[in-house]
Amino acid sequence: MSEPTTLIALLHGPDQPGLVAKTAGWIFARGGNILHADQHRDIEEGVFFQRIEWEPSNASSVEGESAAFREFAGVLGMDSRVAVSTRKQRVVLFVSKADHCFHDLILRWRANEFPCDLVGILGNHPDLESASKAYGIGFHHVEVRPERKGEAEGRQLEILRQLNVDLVVLARYMQVLSADFLKALGRPVINIHHSFLPAFAGGKPYHQAHRRGVKLIGATAHYATPDLDEGPIIQQDVARVTHRHSVEDLVRKGRDLEKMVLAQAVRWHLENRVLVYGNKTVVFD
Amino acid sequence: MSEPTTLIALLHGPDQPGLVAKTAGWIFARGGNILHADQHRDIEEGVFFQRIEWEPSNASSVEGESAAFREFAGVLGMDSRVAVSTRKQRVVLFVSKADHCFHDLILRWRANEFPCDLVGILGNHPDLESASKAYGIGFHHVEVRPERKGEAEGRQLEILRQLNVDLVVLARYMQVLSADFLKALGRPVINIHHSFLPAFAGGKPYHQAHRRGVKLIGATAHYATPDLDEGPIIQQDVARVTHRHSVEDLVRKGRDLEKMVLAQAVRWHLENRVLVYGNKTVVFD
Amino acid sequence: MSEPTTLIALLHGPDQPGLVAKTAGWIFARGGNILHADQHRDIEEGVFFQRIEWEPSNASSVEGESAAFREFAGVLGMDSRVAVSTRKQRVVLFVSKADHCFHDLILRWRANEFPCDLVGILGNHPDLESASKAYGIGFHHVEVRPERKGEAEGRQLEILRQLNVDLVVLARYMQVLSADFLKALGRPVINIHHSFLPAFAGGKPYHQAHRRGVKLIGATAHYATPDLDEGPIIQQDVARVTHRHSVEDLVRKGRDLEKMVLAQAVRWHLENRVLVYGNKTVVFD
Amino acid sequence: MSEPTTLIALLHGPDQPGLVAKTAGWIFARGGNILHADQHRDIEEGVFFQRIEWEPSNASSVEGESAAFREFAGVLGMDSRVAVSTRKQRVVLFVSKADHCFHDLILRWRANEFPCDLVGILGNHPDLESASKAYGIGFHHVEVRPERKGEAEGRQLEILRQLNVDLVVLARYMQVLSADFLKALGRPVINIHHSFLPAFAGGKPYHQAHRRGVKLIGATAHYATPDLDEGPIIQQDVARVTHRHSVEDLVRKGRDLEKMVLAQAVRWHLENRVLVYGNKTVVFD
Repeated sequence: MSEPTTLIALLHGPDQPGLVAKTAGWIFARGGNILHADQHRDIEEGVFFQRIEWEPSNASSVEGESAAFREFAGVLGMDSRVAVSTRKQRVVLFVSKADHCFHDLILRWRANEFPCDLVGILGNHPDLESASKAYGIGFHHVEVRPERKGEAEGRQLEILRQLNVDLVVLARYMQVLSADFLKALGRPVINIHHSFLPAFAGGKPYHQAHRRGVKLIGATAHYATPDLDEGPIIQQDVARVTHRHSVEDLVRKGRDLEKMVLAQAVRWHLENRVLVYGNKTVVFD
Repeated sequence: MSEPTTLIALLHGPDQPGLVAKTAGWIFARGGNILHADQHRDIEEGVFFQRIEWEPSNASSVEGESAAFREFAGVLGMDSRVAVSTRKQRVVLFVSKADHCFHDLILRWRANEFPCDLVGILGNHPDLESASKAYGIGFHHVEVRPERKGEAEGRQLEILRQLNVDLVVLARYMQVLSADFLKALGRPVINIHHSFLPAFAGGKPYHQAHRRGVKLIGATAHYATPDLDEGPIIQQDVARVTHRHSVEDLVRKGRDLEKMVLAQAVRWHLENRVLVYGNKTVVFD
Repeated sequence: MSEPTTLIALLHGPDQPGLVAKTAGWIFARGGNILHADQHRDIEEGVFFQRIEWEPSNASSVEGESAAFREFAGVLGMDSRVAVSTRKQRVVLFVSKADHCFHDLILRWRANEFPCDLVGILGNHPDLESASKAYGIGFHHVEVRPERKGEAEGRQLEILRQLNVDLVVLARYMQVLSADFLKALGRPVINIHHSFLPAFAGGKPYHQAHRRGVKLIGATAHYATPDLDEGPIIQQDVARVTHRHSVEDLVRKGRDLEKMVLAQAVRWHLENRVLVYGNKTVVFD
Repeated sequence: MSEPTTLIALLHGPDQPGLVAKTAGWIFARGGNILHADQHRDIEEGVFFQRIEWEPSNASSVEGESAAFREFAGVLGMDSRVAVSTRKQRVVLFVSKADHCFHDLILRWRANEFPCDLVGILGNHPDLESASKAYGIGFHHVEVRPERKGEAEGRQLEILRQLNVDLVVLARYMQVLSADFLKALGRPVINIHHSFLPAFAGGKPYHQAHRRGVKLIGATAHYATPDLDEGPIIQQDVARVTHRHSVEDLVRKGRDLEKMVLAQAVRWHLENRVLVYGNKTVVFD
């Protein structure tokens, strides 16, 4: 049995009485059937957030319904975006040499854990080229030399535009993307940082953690922003370590954390469950 | 600033299109402001569940509004109950000799973690009488001899009725309540079982766990039903153990689990977040 | 820099004064240098367990030293086995159709997380044949029909003997191995059961868990014994679930648990950290 | 049955071959029976750490045996301290207004989870005076005004000396102890910081965490040093939070973390399981 086509709206804006009734009523009045509706209120800030998923009436076109909802939300003073469940997002992975998140994301995608099309791999090193091809996914090698970073980013942007990408995932890419690149891209970028941010931001976090003698190590998936390691956090997790663990042990244990945390963040994003607001996220899980 | 009075409805019944819109619309039409609305659909069973909290218009009496909502829900074919946020539930703890859950629940109550009135302690042993009195809470000793259990339960029921109890919490009470008692009481009873149910049901679960050599021990808070250790589960958690832990260590570590799991279950219940359905719970956290 | 060759002894037997001093003294007297020594005493049973790892003196042959230690342990009344760190165990995976543990174990092996040689894959279905070959690992298809199970097990044993296997890992093999097979094999077999044993032993544990309404699901890695799902537990872990999770969600979340728990158990086993004793394990982690 | 008197030595110093054999041999030669022996090597730094617990021969005096072991360890070039299991440490709690760690530690102590004598409570506010007295523990109020901090610390030191204290536990004391105070005290001080250090050091960590939008909050027990929030970490743990949690929710959830983490650290310390080394700890659990 095929899943029905649904619309998923994420909206937020100034709180006001009756919002739940108004959005639900709008959908019901047009013959739609609400499958899920989650709300959140930030009381201090006076902001209303909602994720609402519905099956539109048979008569409606999903495009027309999406546009109508966005217009309706605008009248309520809400920012909104509406996704169509059957339209798969186009995703590109950025990789370097480390392959654990690379394999993990691709295998999950093949196991149908991610509702997306994985349309390409972009590496600043050629190491994962043959593995990418073995999976049947195109690999693009763009070398990034510090002194020619702008040029490399230009080439990367060109590739991403050709691939018509909706989401970039930095699967342990280990390079900072410039503010210009992020702005020009205009699409969300999810990064995995190998520490429990804000602890151990910057380079070599497992070395930092080992030196400080922490009893837990962590990983953090966040949207990339021009402020390194400061973007909105989507998911975090930790694992217990002891004095018996060397830096190499932390790196090994960390790989599992990184895989799990990044995969969860990507899945939530692809299911349209994440709303960014200021420097934080609302995750409707 | 005093919290406004709100109404919290828990409802469930056969799924049908438009339910979210209808409940939200009903409240909005009468001038109410919805603060929270969570839904769940059991797709297989075709059942709709909702927890909805709203501030009624100033003009309404909360009692009248509650009754009107229940009537409205009935018309939709839904079972419902409506709680008033300012009406505190009356809670009695059943205790035996172990005092860790006893102290934990009372201290949380005094720290305002539980929106309830703790109106009495009922013990089948007198051990916690002086501690109860030191907290300023009435203690009732009802000895329960196996051969005179019916009589003891009759006495317990009498006390609970005098106290006009809404909820009984078995804080490591270590006695089985009869089906007759539960039926006559007609109020929810929350129990804490010291294992990860359904593993190690019955007596001496830490001994069973030690014998089996498990690597995690658990605790389970559930509603008491005539089927021992088979009631709807509200909350569970586990802690890691190793071969180095003796049964006594499991007991000690288990005390922390029991406190945390029982406290969480009680808090969810008191905040009207738990809907029982068949032998399972829907917890709107 | 190459790692030095070390010997790792696992021993257990009746407790008696001076055991720590005697084993350490024996090694020291022969010029060995102890790198790790972990002991455990089961006080109730009066049993002493030890894992001791040492670098023998340059003059010694590791084979001679191993034999000498085993003889020495025998004099102390201890059962012992001694592994040589540079001798890699030969491992075979048994698989069926599910591929998540299959990929996970192989990728970890390629990332040098497992000190072993992965010498073959044995499947009762041919589904993972091409994937095995893409990894460069031999695949052996042995169909197992219920009415001809003995014959199939005979064929499996033959293959395992030709491969000179030290360890068999059931990577979601989904078939019960007979007592005869296990006896004839005479090598440890590690299985992953997709529940928190002893809860939900037997078939379809995620369905059982969903029906019971548990709030945590689990996975258990254990040594296979003739008593199904009753073998000594090596590792267990759990993940939180809610009423919102369908059986399919439990299956998906369970895959991550199964991968992590099985990989940890296999690694501990390969590092000679697991001592089986009765129906339990002592894990020197 | 009374527990036998045991000696527990913690030692560390430059690594060298034969240390395990030498310490075990020394004890065995004098008729002692080793109950536990755990070692750790910091390979990079070339440091050996050991915790060894033994029952001395009946003929020996524990004081004489302790002194003899320390002398022996000195000959090996090791720093050491030796505790006698039957000599209870004398502990003082520093408190302010918050009472959750205060009640938790005292109730655990009364449940025999801590092998110590709780000899006094010292508060900079009088809020917990009557509660201390109800537990039968002496309460000492020392007001600490910023402009007269030195004077207050002098008074605190005087009380601690009179109480002959072995360990001070800051049970959410919320005041910084000066370097002079710590030096003059010359006894370990355990603090609980309400964040996952090094994230959110300093004041109002739950507010910091809420602002940053982290998905986990933490607590850290560490030895107090003159560098605020920089002392050796003993134990840490985290709890999951979401966008739905207000700062008040984080504070409430944090209380449970703080209780658990501080209690675990105190227990490990009292059982002589913690070795401080540089700015890190080795915890023999």
